[in-house]
Amino acid sequence: MAITVVGSVAYDSIETPAGRRERCLGGAATYFSLAASFFTDVRVIAVVGEDFGPEQEAIFAARKIDTRGIERAPGKSFFWAGSYLEDLNQAKTHTTDLNVFASFEPKIPPAYSDSEFLFLANIDPVLQRRVRDAMPQVKLVAGDTMNYWIKDHRAALEQVLKGLDVLLINDGEARMLAGNSNLAQAARRVMALGPRTLVVKHGEYGASLFHKFVPKSKGPEAFRAPAMLLEEVVDPTGAGDSFAGGFFGYLASCTSAGAADGLTAAAYRRAMYYGSAMGSFACERFGTERLQQLTRREIDERFERLRELTRLD
Amino acid sequence: MAITVVGSVAYDSIETPAGRRERCLGGAATYFSLAASFFTDVRVIAVVGEDFGPEQEAIFAARKIDTRGIERAPGKSFFWAGSYLEDLNQAKTHTTDLNVFASFEPKIPPAYSDSEFLFLANIDPVLQRRVRDAMPQVKLVAGDTMNYWIKDHRAALEQVLKGLDVLLINDGEARMLAGNSNLAQAARRVMALGPRTLVVKHGEYGASLFHKFVPKSKGPEAFRAPAMLLEEVVDPTGAGDSFAGGFFGYLASCTSAGAADGLTAAAYRRAMYYGSAMGSFACERFGTERLQQLTRREIDERFERLRELTRLD
Repeated sequence: MAITVVGSVAYDSIETPAGRRERCLGGAATYFSLAASFFTDVRVIAVVGEDFGPEQEAIFAARKIDTRGIERAPGKSFFWAGSYLEDLNQAKTHTTDLNVFASFEPKIPPAYSDSEFLFLANIDPVLQRRVRDAMPQVKLVAGDTMNYWIKDHRAALEQVLKGLDVLLINDGEARMLAGNSNLAQAARRVMALGPRTLVVKHGEYGASLFHKFVPKSKGPEAFRAPAMLLEEVVDPTGAGDSFAGGFFGYLASCTSAGAADGLTAAAYRRAMYYGSAMGSFACERFGTERLQQLTRREIDERFERLRELTRLD
Repeated sequence: MAITVVGSVAYDSIETPAGRRERCLGGAATYFSLAASFFTDVRVIAVVGEDFGPEQEAIFAARKIDTRGIERAPGKSFFWAGSYLEDLNQAKTHTTDLNVFASFEPKIPPAYSDSEFLFLANIDPVLQRRVRDAMPQVKLVAGDTMNYWIKDHRAALEQVLKGLDVLLINDGEARMLAGNSNLAQAARRVMALGPRTLVVKHGEYGASLFHKFVPKSKGPEAFRAPAMLLEEVVDPTGAGDSFAGGFFGYLASCTSAGAADGLTAAAYRRAMYYGSAMGSFACERFGTERLQQLTRREIDERFERLRELTRLD
């Protein structure tokens, strides 16, 4: 089934201990759609400026990603500059220029209207909700958010959470959203806000999956997936969005038309491994370089390596 | 096979968000031996003061732990006071009184001399080495250390590492010992110092196992085990030592006389899960309270819960 994703398509300038890149293609919707494109059809809703040209367009085209929903607006594209010189797990932001993103009004092409999967990448929850409401036909909605929206736009975010099936956030965001530092308790509280499934990403330590609707005495049904042990992390930018793309892309690939709500617990567990695989690839080169070169065979090989990394018997 | 452990037997005063305890039985050798006692015979080498009485002795006796190697010296036992009020993952030390431990000269009872497994808990590496040299018959030697010895007693520590089969340390210690923040690279460097197997504990995120002696291009053979998702962490004191006790105790239980070096990769992987199980129990009550009440059946149930938490298919 096809996935529609709404989020940022941007330029990033990145510095890490491995080097630096100026104005490479970035943005949550970019990483998500490249990662998901290895599993299913992907359609993007975003806005870019006049600096977005054929070279960037070709990166999406090479992965057969539908970009009819990427609006060209007068001005410059969203720009982010950051570094990871002291800690590869924590970006230090130097510049965030919203540019054309500041007045983004998502428009949904008619051709996207049969999408059964919708991913709301990390943008203003007001926009997330507008897109979700404009696509009533979707069967499974997942989303992301960040500390800024949790802290200062709580009411709008809670409206989005009510309409989400799956929320994917990182450790710190989960604890902040729940107001609780215990991960198991935080997961329960976050799911009480809406999502029936929660994925909490732990960076280099892996990720945890929680489902609602199991007897309370047993705790939420949970699953823990590993992260690859990478010998070199070149650039962690986009790893979380790539995880989401692998996770949601795999789920979409498991379902036939009209059956998006029939996903098994095993499918969710395998999706965690595909998410982890895609997140690890994203870290191996700067920006989207590694995702652009990737093959499905490499992805399945990495899935098997992750399985070996956790095989008990 | 029997394990001999050398390390601290102490009194701890602990404050956590769940409450406080004054002068409860603690120390690395105490937690280790209680945890390991569910799997095999355990013999302790330590020193205590005149404040160590029948009540503390009974805690060891209830688990049939051999305490003939616990020397009684004039003065007070090792005392530690700490709290975890801001962060349950990081103890804040208020007091460390070495007391009788300051002049500890480990003495090995003749009855311990047929031990095939030796665990060198976190003490002065000079003493670790002395005990290791005095027990040439042991077949498998594991040990722990901490930032203080890594930073200020490097030469003595390196002598110990050369004689270790297995080193169990936490994340920060591994990176500090290797001088490298990448976990996979750090593991390789630490193993180059001696240990052919390395266990790196990640607290609430689980633990990673590395083996030396695989082709470099494939990276070290590795395994990642989960941590339980505890709904409440009452007191994390001793969790790492309890992990080590479960891990090493299970390994000792897998071997018959003279076969300590014939442990399979699968045995090490299962040992990681038993370590994780014992570490999680230690956190459920203050001090050693939970380990004292535990049954082997509960341990095996938790092993199965950890297996469920990571079962992919």
